[in-house]
Amino acid sequence: MTTKIQIDLNSDVGESFGVYQLGLDEEVIPHITSANVACGFHAGDPAVMRKTVSLAKRYGVEVGAHPGFPDLLGFGRRNVDATLEEIQDYVVYQTGALMGFALSQGLRLQHVKPHGSLYNMAVTNPKIWEAIAEGVAKVDREIILVVLASARKKSLLEIGKRHGIRVAFEAFPDRAYNNEGALVSRREKGAVIHDHEVVAKRALKMALEGKVIAFDGTEIDLEADTLCVHGDNPAAVEMVKKIRQELKDAGVTVLPMKWFV
Amino acid sequence: MTTKIQIDLNSDVGESFGVYQLGLDEEVIPHITSANVACGFHAGDPAVMRKTVSLAKRYGVEVGAHPGFPDLLGFGRRNVDATLEEIQDYVVYQTGALMGFALSQGLRLQHVKPHGSLYNMAVTNPKIWEAIAEGVAKVDREIILVVLASARKKSLLEIGKRHGIRVAFEAFPDRAYNNEGALVSRREKGAVIHDHEVVAKRALKMALEGKVIAFDGTEIDLEADTLCVHGDNPAAVEMVKKIRQELKDAGVTVLPMKWFV
Amino acid sequence: MTTKIQIDLNSDVGESFGVYQLGLDEEVIPHITSANVACGFHAGDPAVMRKTVSLAKRYGVEVGAHPGFPDLLGFGRRNVDATLEEIQDYVVYQTGALMGFALSQGLRLQHVKPHGSLYNMAVTNPKIWEAIAEGVAKVDREIILVVLASARKKSLLEIGKRHGIRVAFEAFPDRAYNNEGALVSRREKGAVIHDHEVVAKRALKMALEGKVIAFDGTEIDLEADTLCVHGDNPAAVEMVKKIRQELKDAGVTVLPMKWFV
Amino acid sequence: MTTKIQIDLNSDVGESFGVYQLGLDEEVIPHITSANVACGFHAGDPAVMRKTVSLAKRYGVEVGAHPGFPDLLGFGRRNVDATLEEIQDYVVYQTGALMGFALSQGLRLQHVKPHGSLYNMAVTNPKIWEAIAEGVAKVDREIILVVLASARKKSLLEIGKRHGIRVAFEAFPDRAYNNEGALVSRREKGAVIHDHEVVAKRALKMALEGKVIAFDGTEIDLEADTLCVHGDNPAAVEMVKKIRQELKDAGVTVLPMKWFV
Repeated sequence: MTTKIQIDLNSDVGESFGVYQLGLDEEVIPHITSANVACGFHAGDPAVMRKTVSLAKRYGVEVGAHPGFPDLLGFGRRNVDATLEEIQDYVVYQTGALMGFALSQGLRLQHVKPHGSLYNMAVTNPKIWEAIAEGVAKVDREIILVVLASARKKSLLEIGKRHGIRVAFEAFPDRAYNNEGALVSRREKGAVIHDHEVVAKRALKMALEGKVIAFDGTEIDLEADTLCVHGDNPAAVEMVKKIRQELKDAGVTVLPMKWFV
Repeated sequence: MTTKIQIDLNSDVGESFGVYQLGLDEEVIPHITSANVACGFHAGDPAVMRKTVSLAKRYGVEVGAHPGFPDLLGFGRRNVDATLEEIQDYVVYQTGALMGFALSQGLRLQHVKPHGSLYNMAVTNPKIWEAIAEGVAKVDREIILVVLASARKKSLLEIGKRHGIRVAFEAFPDRAYNNEGALVSRREKGAVIHDHEVVAKRALKMALEGKVIAFDGTEIDLEADTLCVHGDNPAAVEMVKKIRQELKDAGVTVLPMKWFV
Repeated sequence: MTTKIQIDLNSDVGESFGVYQLGLDEEVIPHITSANVACGFHAGDPAVMRKTVSLAKRYGVEVGAHPGFPDLLGFGRRNVDATLEEIQDYVVYQTGALMGFALSQGLRLQHVKPHGSLYNMAVTNPKIWEAIAEGVAKVDREIILVVLASARKKSLLEIGKRHGIRVAFEAFPDRAYNNEGALVSRREKGAVIHDHEVVAKRALKMALEGKVIAFDGTEIDLEADTLCVHGDNPAAVEMVKKIRQELKDAGVTVLPMKWFV
Repeated sequence: MTTKIQIDLNSDVGESFGVYQLGLDEEVIPHITSANVACGFHAGDPAVMRKTVSLAKRYGVEVGAHPGFPDLLGFGRRNVDATLEEIQDYVVYQTGALMGFALSQGLRLQHVKPHGSLYNMAVTNPKIWEAIAEGVAKVDREIILVVLASARKKSLLEIGKRHGIRVAFEAFPDRAYNNEGALVSRREKGAVIHDHEVVAKRALKMALEGKVIAFDGTEIDLEADTLCVHGDNPAAVEMVKKIRQELKDAGVTVLPMKWFV
């Protein structure tokens, strides 16, 4: 931490598909600084990608690719035992596709954050982070890779260094952590925190102190560059506004990760 | 025509998908100068795209996107009454996706050539060429748009100019033309010419004189920058070799379109 | 018309896909008598099909297949120039798939009603009705084919007879008709009627008199066996309830088409 | 074994998709007795299904569904951590879809055999066999479920009994087995046997004695009702002919499993 504390707020957006609407993108995007845009494999389609990039641009929000497994039916939330090579190809393809829409609107991609099972599988298998990092680096070394803030910080920084890209650490204010800094599985009771006051307080603690209170009450280190927030429903959007306001009130600068990572 | 005649040879490649193999890419790519790579909508997949770009790179063949309708089942050969906006989005998405693989291997895209029904629909509806040209231009003004050489040459050049991109005209040595310079529909008998001698002679005439003998015997103008050849089967590959050899023997320089368009 | 007037109410349901929710199936199904269930090509997925069949069963609503083009991205609303053979194959596939879920719950399919562009293309090209009718007949001659009530009544009945299946005629109380009994295109202003009172009155007139007031004020014949209603939003569901109540108040028996077609 | 030995020969067919051709169905189908037809999820499409059923019918070969994961890109060979409910839904959907084509040609489905990863996952997790068996039983209790012949025979028979369906045990003459009767993973060297003489001899031993020589030389029990053979290439087809001829020469009756399971 420096005297001037900075943090990024990211959210998964652009998850509609064809006639199917998902997420309150128009409501949440104005309040975040980095938009993770679905790229057509687990969600999103070309028209949705164009509109989402346009929406982000309007609010000065940075755009990143949110690549997932090619499993629209499962929304990218089911593990697929793809090879590392397949995973890298999926990342390159989807990052490129979104880059097409970013370039079309005069933008560059700020970051890549894997989605759903791809993210979760990477968290438990560093070889997957490596494959993803290499894919991102091959496309554009200016792109930041967003990974889970955890005890593995050092090895993840090394992966980034090895491929010449920056790595941003992400934390989840509304998710319970165990005392080793890992996310408590969504299947566990209490894994997701719904109380706005509590979530906002956790976001503040993450931003100001780089710490979180784990499931068992222990205070643990969790240095994050970006906090993940949600726009699934009106309540979620309210929570985002609250988090942003409280960060501001506490003197934290909320800005896109590219400025400080 | 200048005293030193130049022509490009292009071919549709990268049309395999998953376990499904299609086309003799390894055999045909060494003999062409521009590779139109399928981008996953009507054919191709991320792994195939990576391998195809790699193969093209190995032989110094320029890479271009070959976007089609999202109709793998119909191989992009069925008209889909998509809106102009949808078409442009499809072009941006697929061009971007292939750009991901090109960048990954240190290459830039040379061109975009629409596939199948998308190409055919554009030929009969200039608004579709316009939508495609605009999409290409938005992504990267260095990319050349490949269109059908025909009587419409002037209006197509204007579309290119309007969007600040170069346009390359394509002719088909193995396809019959009517006396207005349009392709005879594949449903007509004699629409596709299989005799290697005849096809090679037509290719030469196109390259050397900018002319073709139409279906009814008339000689018509058909100035082309690139000739489309095929790698579907061993006989097709032999035809490509023959065409290239005869062009060379006639003193024609066969090289990527980017050098002279 | 007989002294005891009978009519069926059908609605397109089961259009959700994966995480994507569409339509208020739970609200509208209790008020209809025939459910047109999407079969996974333009909408719907295996889990949604199972749940939708189960929901219909719970309320004694008859189940039918709602086959569409394989175009999830376009929700089956874009014309695809598929061959008659492809269309028939799509109908057989989707009807069979839904039959799997119907049999699983001890039900038989009552009907097949093509969706979106497939329906619209059939309306303007009787060869498509013929291909569909033949497909339905091949799978199960007990299945009723739902077609648009129009001036073509006689030729459609003949198609049914030729293939040994029953044909049910469908009318749309909330859609404007021209004076030849054809639907006014949705692109025209006034094509869709939103006033509940007006729609209910039209439904009544269709059921009681077999007539409708066309766009130009003319009263024309439109004998229908089933009226199509919608469950897209709460207002639509209210309209369905109103239509059903008014039909009941007018002494019309609302029951599945299989009992009287 | 009875004095008159009977065995079925099954093969995976109908794996082409759109323009993509896979497998020598026309060559192999005349020599088998049961055809496992892909149903559009991992391979196959409506037209291919129709043609494959027709081909099987022409040669008096029984037709069964070969359902797989919805992963055309991975040909159903990648594990997907779908829930048991999702798996059952996939089986019901695909079985129903093929039933549509079988009924269209006056046939009933003889069997269901899961494909690729779905099969392999079931082999290591009996709950998946249970989910599949229940799905099959719900659609039609006349359908036989094909499972891997192994030491688990008793528990698999119980699953069949529990759901009121017959179970057929399958063995692979060209695959190595370990001494517990499980297939050696394809990743191991020697897992697939290519020598026609050896494979034919193994097929004979399986049919005549219900035994196989395991990888380590041990002779183990492996009672099978059906032997899986392949039609991927001309050599494979020759192997099928050889197996069939040798079985015949040894007095084994080769006939569809439905006659004796």
